[in-house]
Amino acid sequence: MCQLLAMNSSKPATLDFSFAGFKERGGRTDEHRDGWGIAFHSSSGCTLLTDHLAAIDSPLAAQLHDRSIKAKNIVAHIRKATQGRIAPENTHPFARELWGKTWSFAHNGDLKTWNAPANAYYQAAGDTDSEQAFCYLLASLRTRFPAGEPALGELRTAIAAIAAEIAVHGSFNFIVSDGNVLFAHCSTHLHYVIREYPFSVAHLIDCERSIDFRQHNHLDDRIAVIATHPLTQDEPWTAFGPGELKLFVGGALQEELAESKAAAPPRAVYIQISY
Amino acid sequence: MCQLLAMNSSKPATLDFSFAGFKERGGRTDEHRDGWGIAFHSSSGCTLLTDHLAAIDSPLAAQLHDRSIKAKNIVAHIRKATQGRIAPENTHPFARELWGKTWSFAHNGDLKTWNAPANAYYQAAGDTDSEQAFCYLLASLRTRFPAGEPALGELRTAIAAIAAEIAVHGSFNFIVSDGNVLFAHCSTHLHYVIREYPFSVAHLIDCERSIDFRQHNHLDDRIAVIATHPLTQDEPWTAFGPGELKLFVGGALQEELAESKAAAPPRAVYIQISY
Repeated sequence: MCQLLAMNSSKPATLDFSFAGFKERGGRTDEHRDGWGIAFHSSSGCTLLTDHLAAIDSPLAAQLHDRSIKAKNIVAHIRKATQGRIAPENTHPFARELWGKTWSFAHNGDLKTWNAPANAYYQAAGDTDSEQAFCYLLASLRTRFPAGEPALGELRTAIAAIAAEIAVHGSFNFIVSDGNVLFAHCSTHLHYVIREYPFSVAHLIDCERSIDFRQHNHLDDRIAVIATHPLTQDEPWTAFGPGELKLFVGGALQEELAESKAAAPPRAVYIQISY
Repeated sequence: MCQLLAMNSSKPATLDFSFAGFKERGGRTDEHRDGWGIAFHSSSGCTLLTDHLAAIDSPLAAQLHDRSIKAKNIVAHIRKATQGRIAPENTHPFARELWGKTWSFAHNGDLKTWNAPANAYYQAAGDTDSEQAFCYLLASLRTRFPAGEPALGELRTAIAAIAAEIAVHGSFNFIVSDGNVLFAHCSTHLHYVIREYPFSVAHLIDCERSIDFRQHNHLDDRIAVIATHPLTQDEPWTAFGPGELKLFVGGALQEELAESKAAAPPRAVYIQISY
């Protein structure tokens, strides 16, 4: 199994504090030693860093702290190999292009009984169930929306349906982002917290480190952090329910709208969001 | 304009020595300050590192020297922006999947007069002529070979034809690798050297550094290094001719075969190569 960490923010922000605790699980406080990776989305671009070393032993992971890379969406993963060798092609997040945007994807779980049907667009380069699932997800979106990117409500409905279809075959906790918005799906374990005004102090669970978010944020900053298990001991982390797909936009959770499943999706709801 | 550096090797090898000289051109001995990137291909996977900082100022570039990442194929690039902003989505090398393998691509030149025709498979995420050319190249290969990956001779003929088609529109020096073999195309400036037995001593042009390859290589090692301009002062670099596409396999230059342009390509020639 693996662990997931992701961020969706109203403005470009760093994930340094949370990543500092998360990477401890990559070999010290937990057993996820088989590689790690992180995708930073800024504007339409994506910087993907992956390493097959354990996160706690990786100079690249250590350096991330010094760099403080800011992004609106970040997807990170530490791996304990269940399917596929320890190799670059099997290291999450995976990144592929759809509709002129780079999408990143990371998975925690096992789809042992599943063989993804082949498709005309995406083929896995490695041998993980996770990359197969990502290829199938993106190809299914292409097929459902041949004219190009749909409204966000339609996209959410489609991703929920495809996720449910895949999740029949095993455990399918995943994060996927197109660089603008971020979807998180839970089969077994996934939690989120929204950091917003009034900001407070938080202490990491996995190492001796705390932060006073009041010193680092503006009144209008809002940051959603999603993780397999809570990273701090004094924040109100909320557990996802099994089978839930949540959508984060501009650092906020977008509650499921009844209309989003209707024939005419509420485009205006989303167009008004600035991020 | 930009500069290119690439390696194709008989065994996994580092490019540390050559990259040390190359990165000096990313802001110190030359003006290519607008980002850099490097793709390491191992087995079927690819680790891509890109940075929008100048190579000489980048902690990530400095760290590469300490890591000594080994690969059979490496594609590197330092950028001086001509088209497209300084941003992650415009930083070479670009990486995309074709036939279940990750291909990397870097370009030096300008295709100002060209608008790549849209295709059903690949869409540029950034706004460079280079990424458009890469998308067009891969989509053209898919269209030419709908049944999947062809024999190497057919692939070479196809890439040469597509490169010639694009090069009509400007300057198109590029490197592309599928992780197994490496193609290099020259419009204006490109050079290569083969490092093999008997190995010798080489001195970098861009900084005070030399290496005795006899101390670092085995008798059967063979490494082709391709660069926009020679990196060392005491090796027999060979200039590409304008319009030339060269193929490197297992660290060796694969001379153009007359048969490779015939209707039935000589599959056996390539099957016998072990790398």
